[in-house]
Amino acid sequence: MIDNEKINEYISKFLEESAGKPSELYDPLKYTIDSGGKKIRPMLAYMAADLFGSDLQHIHPIAASLELFHNFTLIHDDIMDKSPLRRNKPTVHIKWNENIAILSGDAMMIIAYKALEKLPPHILAQVLPVFNQTALEVCEGQQYDMNFENLPSVSIPEYIHMIKLKTSVLIAACLKMGAIAAGASQSDADNLYEFGVNLGIAFQLRDDYLDAFGDEKVFGKKTGNDIVTNKKTYLLIKALELAKDHDANELHSCLNKQTINAEVKIETVKSIFKKLNIDVLTENEIDKYYNISTEAIQKLNVPTEKLLPLRKLAEDLMNRKS
Amino acid sequence: MIDNEKINEYISKFLEESAGKPSELYDPLKYTIDSGGKKIRPMLAYMAADLFGSDLQHIHPIAASLELFHNFTLIHDDIMDKSPLRRNKPTVHIKWNENIAILSGDAMMIIAYKALEKLPPHILAQVLPVFNQTALEVCEGQQYDMNFENLPSVSIPEYIHMIKLKTSVLIAACLKMGAIAAGASQSDADNLYEFGVNLGIAFQLRDDYLDAFGDEKVFGKKTGNDIVTNKKTYLLIKALELAKDHDANELHSCLNKQTINAEVKIETVKSIFKKLNIDVLTENEIDKYYNISTEAIQKLNVPTEKLLPLRKLAEDLMNRKS
Repeated sequence: MIDNEKINEYISKFLEESAGKPSELYDPLKYTIDSGGKKIRPMLAYMAADLFGSDLQHIHPIAASLELFHNFTLIHDDIMDKSPLRRNKPTVHIKWNENIAILSGDAMMIIAYKALEKLPPHILAQVLPVFNQTALEVCEGQQYDMNFENLPSVSIPEYIHMIKLKTSVLIAACLKMGAIAAGASQSDADNLYEFGVNLGIAFQLRDDYLDAFGDEKVFGKKTGNDIVTNKKTYLLIKALELAKDHDANELHSCLNKQTINAEVKIETVKSIFKKLNIDVLTENEIDKYYNISTEAIQKLNVPTEKLLPLRKLAEDLMNRKS
Repeated sequence: MIDNEKINEYISKFLEESAGKPSELYDPLKYTIDSGGKKIRPMLAYMAADLFGSDLQHIHPIAASLELFHNFTLIHDDIMDKSPLRRNKPTVHIKWNENIAILSGDAMMIIAYKALEKLPPHILAQVLPVFNQTALEVCEGQQYDMNFENLPSVSIPEYIHMIKLKTSVLIAACLKMGAIAAGASQSDADNLYEFGVNLGIAFQLRDDYLDAFGDEKVFGKKTGNDIVTNKKTYLLIKALELAKDHDANELHSCLNKQTINAEVKIETVKSIFKKLNIDVLTENEIDKYYNISTEAIQKLNVPTEKLLPLRKLAEDLMNRKS
């Protein structure tokens, strides 16, 4: 199995080859790619390919393309969300400026497509539609996310749809594109996509859960940030749906107060969450999507022992505490 | 030869098929495409293809892709340039907001790539590298253009390089991609690219010329806008290069005065341009690139009479008064 260092090396080398002048356009790309990240998406493409073959030459460009696309979304999302920091470093629009962030994000997306040039025509023709559809859906997810901020209420199905588009479809596309490039059958590729979409939803719900109920020592950062910012997470949407009478009043009062101590707000909202059983309900929902995902890989037409790395990854993501 | 209406019809239909929800993401795309534009780029792809074959089915997606990409650049450039109007209508970031303009521009670019899915694999594999390279160069051109605004001086070669990247390479790619899709040889495709790049530079220089020396009645809008905004056009760069003593002082004084009547500024700068022969020098430069472009099409391996539409287009663009 390929390691993180090799992945980084390939992507950095490809970016170096593709980048020209002026430096104002290309420096932010190198800065973003060099700033780390877990490289989960390329890793998934390699893992999927490993199920069907061992020749990595077609997987490298796909893995690079997906990671470059993911980084393009980070640059543009950070402008839209006005985020000052990413991976503990200033975001591109802060370190340079908004125009440079828009344009270098555009260039990052083009370079993501450029990586696909390295594929043989028959593989290119199969993966390009998956890539395009996914890329559009990721934009849709970001637009829904922005819309939700201005809506008085959002339903659970609407929320699940948004996180599916914004996060899960790219995870799923990594697996599917890796599989296609390794010569998988259509049904195996589709089942891996199913696995990825549902694992992605479970992953995002786990994120929501940890922000409220994570152990700060293990979580590595302060919990409760979503609560302080009134972020419409699965937890808050579910709580607003279930809260009645006194709980509902207290919850709405917490959300609407302009001047409330952050610690008090976190404690109050968390105690309402607990009272309404939101922690258990969220864990149940996570389990639901996790189970759908593991069912999907059982349908794969590959020897059971080959599935171990994917199963382990799914378990690790589910049991993660940070 | 295909007409403008058919081109519009194909692109609108393709956009309609590709667009989903939410409407905040896709409405700005339809708004931009429906707002007109001369459709020069698709037309060039069809004209190039016409030289080598008559089957248009592979040209439609290429023409749509190039026009969609061009419109993506307009949406993002308008944010960066803070332009309130485009084709006499409010720009996307004004009519909606900046975040929507960033994201719907991204979606427009993805849909441009999506159009290429419709190509057979062997054509896709040939045109994708041309498209990617061109797209990156257009970003480079926009970045140079933004850099130039903050530079005290720019040389003529730097300026020509910028307009080549920002405008000409896309014109050239339209011809080259149309030719490839119609089965042209590599050398014919390359010569059409040469024709396009040089015609594009001549076209942009003509733009600079008309802004200062166009006949307002024929030009259709007020001239002198570039002069009022101190835009580093070919004319101004050349004038700054040639002006000495009194002329140089007067030119710099015009550029640096914060409170100068626009009409006075235009008249003063134009009289310096005239004195320095800038109008004639610019026309010579236009002729130079126009001649290189027509030489390139003479090298094409197609019957001379087939070249007439391209020759006519080039002449029309050169003789245009608006």
